[in-house]
Amino acid sequence: MNAFELYNPVRVFFGEGQLFHLSEQIPADARVLLTFGGGSIHRTGIYDEVRKVLGDRHVVDFGGIEPNPHYETLVQALPIIKSEGITFILAVGGGSVIDGTKFIAAAAKYEGADPWELLKNPKLAEGIGAMPFGTVLTLSATGSEMNNGAVITRAETHEKFAFHSPSTFPVFSIVDPAYTLSLPMNQVVNGVVDAFVHVMEQYMTYPADAPVQDRFAEGLLATLMDIGPKLRAYPKDLRLRDDLALCAMWALNGWIAAGVPEDWSTHLIGHELTALFGLDHGLTLAIIYPHLLKDQIEHKQAKLIQFAERVLDARTGKKAGEQSNTVTGTMLQKLLGANPDPHMLATGAAIGIETFLVMMYDGKVHLSDYGITKEQLQPIWERFEQRRWRLGENRTIDAEAVKRILLAAL
Amino acid sequence: MNAFELYNPVRVFFGEGQLFHLSEQIPADARVLLTFGGGSIHRTGIYDEVRKVLGDRHVVDFGGIEPNPHYETLVQALPIIKSEGITFILAVGGGSVIDGTKFIAAAAKYEGADPWELLKNPKLAEGIGAMPFGTVLTLSATGSEMNNGAVITRAETHEKFAFHSPSTFPVFSIVDPAYTLSLPMNQVVNGVVDAFVHVMEQYMTYPADAPVQDRFAEGLLATLMDIGPKLRAYPKDLRLRDDLALCAMWALNGWIAAGVPEDWSTHLIGHELTALFGLDHGLTLAIIYPHLLKDQIEHKQAKLIQFAERVLDARTGKKAGEQSNTVTGTMLQKLLGANPDPHMLATGAAIGIETFLVMMYDGKVHLSDYGITKEQLQPIWERFEQRRWRLGENRTIDAEAVKRILLAAL
Repeated sequence: MNAFELYNPVRVFFGEGQLFHLSEQIPADARVLLTFGGGSIHRTGIYDEVRKVLGDRHVVDFGGIEPNPHYETLVQALPIIKSEGITFILAVGGGSVIDGTKFIAAAAKYEGADPWELLKNPKLAEGIGAMPFGTVLTLSATGSEMNNGAVITRAETHEKFAFHSPSTFPVFSIVDPAYTLSLPMNQVVNGVVDAFVHVMEQYMTYPADAPVQDRFAEGLLATLMDIGPKLRAYPKDLRLRDDLALCAMWALNGWIAAGVPEDWSTHLIGHELTALFGLDHGLTLAIIYPHLLKDQIEHKQAKLIQFAERVLDARTGKKAGEQSNTVTGTMLQKLLGANPDPHMLATGAAIGIETFLVMMYDGKVHLSDYGITKEQLQPIWERFEQRRWRLGENRTIDAEAVKRILLAAL
Repeated sequence: MNAFELYNPVRVFFGEGQLFHLSEQIPADARVLLTFGGGSIHRTGIYDEVRKVLGDRHVVDFGGIEPNPHYETLVQALPIIKSEGITFILAVGGGSVIDGTKFIAAAAKYEGADPWELLKNPKLAEGIGAMPFGTVLTLSATGSEMNNGAVITRAETHEKFAFHSPSTFPVFSIVDPAYTLSLPMNQVVNGVVDAFVHVMEQYMTYPADAPVQDRFAEGLLATLMDIGPKLRAYPKDLRLRDDLALCAMWALNGWIAAGVPEDWSTHLIGHELTALFGLDHGLTLAIIYPHLLKDQIEHKQAKLIQFAERVLDARTGKKAGEQSNTVTGTMLQKLLGANPDPHMLATGAAIGIETFLVMMYDGKVHLSDYGITKEQLQPIWERFEQRRWRLGENRTIDAEAVKRILLAAL
């Protein structure tokens, strides 16, 4: 494995009924900016619960942070922080609210004229620190509750920017999976798929002599493939929500990336689809990933076979029809027989992954299902061409590959 | 799973050649107490390397911290810290040096007359903070480099005390597995077994609806069972040392314990054997654990079967002789056939674990191998009887059970 640095100081309170920790974690004399999204926290009662625990602290609301949070929205918090003398920010929401809050927390410390500079030049953020902030998570997906990263959209140009700083770790995160029970099912599905592909981006690369990291990633993938369909069938099962919350948090808290190569090409292509067509982030990943895997199969063959054997349990040499741990494992055994060649087994693994993603979205994982045409996609590969981007852990995904993958996903 | 709090702010620099981070992590004007053990760091050259990176900082040596560090030794550091105006402690060594340093760091902040009070009453340590300290790890075993816990021995009474405080996390730990290449093999073996049983203490309990934690623990156990024999066969293979270092660190950094029941009875019985007879800590675990498992098999049956299926790969229904992932898995398949009953499978798993531990110590895992007699053991179960201790995740291990286990281990 490669050398690595690991640091994650987020204090996590996980489980039902953990909200009371707010009162000990936020200073009694704090002046709190409460950030949230479209107002669902009012409907579900979480807003009232939070206000109750905050007691008589001075609290100012800052709602309306949209999915794929907009720079233009977030900067409106900055004058409020100044005029109200805010000393602590509390984000109540999912990844978008938390991502947006990270940017606000850093921008509040920025003394330059235009906070836009922080997104254009991420190095700028390193030196300036950030206001302290905590989170109350209401949607498990991005893992933002336990890392220092954010993705911010400039609405004006439809561009997404990655942002992070050594100071934008939440001081604490309260992860009570019961708060996710009121979500619409499509958001739960997006969360499963987001977490699944997050893990894949850090696992499905070339082998890197990292057995511990591999086993952890496989554990998360196996759990997500197990609970994904169950979450749809049993939307009120809190134990399944617990497992999803833990998987999503683990998928992006830095640990499974330590010492191993990373890919992230599916995210970068998916971000373009969200920016251009407004597709949900999780859905874009489900659309792109199977075709990217098949396109890059020679580079990912060794890991795909490992995945087939350990996660799908489609072990070579297993009797056809013998019980497998997974539906897709059983299917692959039947399809591939006792001694598949490596290319067949890797392809089978990619199909197994596709089957899982297709199931999660009821088959609607083609761009054409969302009315998108070939002509509309052209700007994406043109943009990759202009920027001469080479994606993937081996830098093998050029504009031509992006074009092939998008056309296969139509 | 249960609700939990997670917090681990240790900054880890992992991999070959990471020592240079010392110079950025320790303030340039720090006055450093350098703590170490019996002086092997002089032989191996690590001492000189560390001094070189520390540059012209004021450094005072405090060597001679023994295995199972003695309270009587550690308190001798306190007047030195005062007289030399020490502001930072750097521990260079294994778990004993780091454990001892944690106690020194806290005791240096204690204003009472007798630092012994901190061990007698662990609550006392919570309020007083600790001096900042970092570590350079030279032996992978206890995981002390990434947690806030320590075990301190009072030489006078042969007693071991657990110590921890919210302030005794290392600020940073440098984990360069190349530093472990010069260790005698028996210390490497002790490290493998210590890490293995640490994981088991947090995994081999009753099932707790915690699939992610289970998968992580199984990943560590599978890796340790794989690399254990290889470490003996290839003592110069740095990749195996990397994997061991990662397993040992993960085994006790708090993550796999989050939300699940814990056991720790093997450690508590083993500590008695170390205190009375001076046996290595890892060895005491290898002596006790198989017999504890067999004694408690009805309480641990479900998890033993899960372990047999997932880690030993002795899956029910697998053809006898079909390739298994592990030596013990293949053995169990042959022994148990296609449809073992649950009790047989659980027993088989316990035997599989015993086989691994026996292999690691060349068969010398009986108390009689070390000249210990039944009569000498009696004080142990008498002490359990006096204190009315009930150990294990179900509190089913009373003095009578301790007696049975020790006699079986003779």
